[in-house]
Amino acid sequence: MVHSKLRDKIQLSHGAGGTIMNEIIRSAILANITKRRVEGGVGLDDFDDGASIPFGDSEVVVSSDAHTVDPLFFPGGDIGKLSACGAVNDLAMMGAQPLAITDTIVVEEGFEVGDLKRIVRSMNEVAEEVGMAIIHGDFKVMPKGKLDGMVITTTGIGAVPRGDLILDSGLRNGDKIIVTGPIGDHGTAIASLREGISFSTSIKSDAAPLWALMQEGMKAGKITAAKDPTRGGIAMALNEMAERSQASIIIDEDKIPIREEVRGACEMLGLDPLELTCEGRAAIGVRREDAELVLKAIKAAPYGEDATVVGEVGSERKGYVIMRTAVGGRRIVNAPLGEPTPRIC
Amino acid sequence: MVHSKLRDKIQLSHGAGGTIMNEIIRSAILANITKRRVEGGVGLDDFDDGASIPFGDSEVVVSSDAHTVDPLFFPGGDIGKLSACGAVNDLAMMGAQPLAITDTIVVEEGFEVGDLKRIVRSMNEVAEEVGMAIIHGDFKVMPKGKLDGMVITTTGIGAVPRGDLILDSGLRNGDKIIVTGPIGDHGTAIASLREGISFSTSIKSDAAPLWALMQEGMKAGKITAAKDPTRGGIAMALNEMAERSQASIIIDEDKIPIREEVRGACEMLGLDPLELTCEGRAAIGVRREDAELVLKAIKAAPYGEDATVVGEVGSERKGYVIMRTAVGGRRIVNAPLGEPTPRIC
Repeated sequence: MVHSKLRDKIQLSHGAGGTIMNEIIRSAILANITKRRVEGGVGLDDFDDGASIPFGDSEVVVSSDAHTVDPLFFPGGDIGKLSACGAVNDLAMMGAQPLAITDTIVVEEGFEVGDLKRIVRSMNEVAEEVGMAIIHGDFKVMPKGKLDGMVITTTGIGAVPRGDLILDSGLRNGDKIIVTGPIGDHGTAIASLREGISFSTSIKSDAAPLWALMQEGMKAGKITAAKDPTRGGIAMALNEMAERSQASIIIDEDKIPIREEVRGACEMLGLDPLELTCEGRAAIGVRREDAELVLKAIKAAPYGEDATVVGEVGSERKGYVIMRTAVGGRRIVNAPLGEPTPRIC
Repeated sequence: MVHSKLRDKIQLSHGAGGTIMNEIIRSAILANITKRRVEGGVGLDDFDDGASIPFGDSEVVVSSDAHTVDPLFFPGGDIGKLSACGAVNDLAMMGAQPLAITDTIVVEEGFEVGDLKRIVRSMNEVAEEVGMAIIHGDFKVMPKGKLDGMVITTTGIGAVPRGDLILDSGLRNGDKIIVTGPIGDHGTAIASLREGISFSTSIKSDAAPLWALMQEGMKAGKITAAKDPTRGGIAMALNEMAERSQASIIIDEDKIPIREEVRGACEMLGLDPLELTCEGRAAIGVRREDAELVLKAIKAAPYGEDATVVGEVGSERKGYVIMRTAVGGRRIVNAPLGEPTPRIC
């Protein structure tokens, strides 16, 4: 078994966003924490995009992510853009308006000040676009050789009226599933850059802040669940939604938007686009009767022009994601063990 | 000049918590961020222990810190205890009750799972003591050789009734200054451990959560400003309070609580205890008429038994910290360039 060897020492797969990561988080982290939620809020056990703290008529939503992407600069963005988008999108997926982020930046001694400035400017561009503030932070330097480049952690702080929180567990039978754009761009961009594949120049990270898109979608109809498919890709995101909603998700293979270049790169690299990290996409569950209006609103919103309905929610095999293949068959899409590329985000 | 060389590349001193760090934060980070506070709240420009977001009758207070301490385990604590205390204390110094923390844990491949569990348990002990929840987090693994050990970022989320926020800028002429316990223990424990000094075993980190202490102090009288002297030590903390309050702070050398072992180790290592990191101490400004009651309350609270009044706030040399020396002289205590030991917290 892959697991017997992994008991004592952390492996790369433990941080890859899939089922192996969830296991170590449960056994080493959650099992040792007593109070895992604020009374009435969303907490660690929910494994949602963020957590919430009830606060009068509102819920304060928070979400923290560490970013270790390698390389720091890549087609379509850099670690600054990624870390700001990551915070925004986790809040947006819970229906919360991003108010502010904090960041902690850890760099190695000798890091170029010019690169630091570029990275901060990228974070700031995202903050400006979303209209949120960057209100607090920390800056640490590790001696040469003790850290490769930079690690940034961002925490997003948002707010949502009580009762309007969007949870991964909200899918109901008959809901439609929308994917907001082509999948796998970010994962392919990083992987092909690292492998030195020449066509990589045409594939850019999809990193983008999705609050405006979510806001427009929420205005147009009832969004029942939402998730941004980061590590583990759309396969992980849909499995998590299906499991937490105790529903099945049935998707059509030929409706999943994937760019031709991404498909080609994945074939060459032996990767499954369904398992690749996206940084500017969402999988969204919508009440069937609202699906058309929500789709229209999302398509008109920033980063939503290629949104499409990829399937619907069923009740036959609860907790599973089932794909209707292009040739008329059916197969189960499993939760991946993890994103295949390390330091993807 | 020390600075001309530092323009292009990050040096260890840039992360050392002193004036050199503040300069790089201003020039590389703040200068590139457009919106640095949420309307009506405390933000980046305030350089306070945390930031705040007005929320109805309350303010939500947030504070994020990255922890890179080396070694991960040390007398008196470990990185888990340190990272939880760091979040609690930043909130407490603003008068905010800690409600929850989030954490992001980044480890190197091969990290011992047993050590991870110990570290999480340490975080949890602090959370239990304070009654706060650990509600969200992230876990990333960097390939072998790309990170030395572990980096943990914690974000504390707290709340304080509107108007009760304690700011660094709140000192007024005549206020008394309380230091809540012996200074420099943490810095000395780490430095002597790294230098392999044998008497190090008797010096333990002071890492401790100070919310109960602050709460008791606030009940007993008017606390006008508070700061936990982490990187840069009490010298940095007092200078920051004096500068932001546009007041002078006059302290008595012979009243500053310093353990004999710490004094001895500092002499041997060539360190100034005033500049060494504490992780469970606070410098607190109190209205003169309330000083006796607040001191009594703090002395009765956890981690406050050695609290003492070390001086008072004056108005003669605004922005300066002045020490009345044991032999009857006066000298200015400058803001240090930085904490002398890297990876101290």
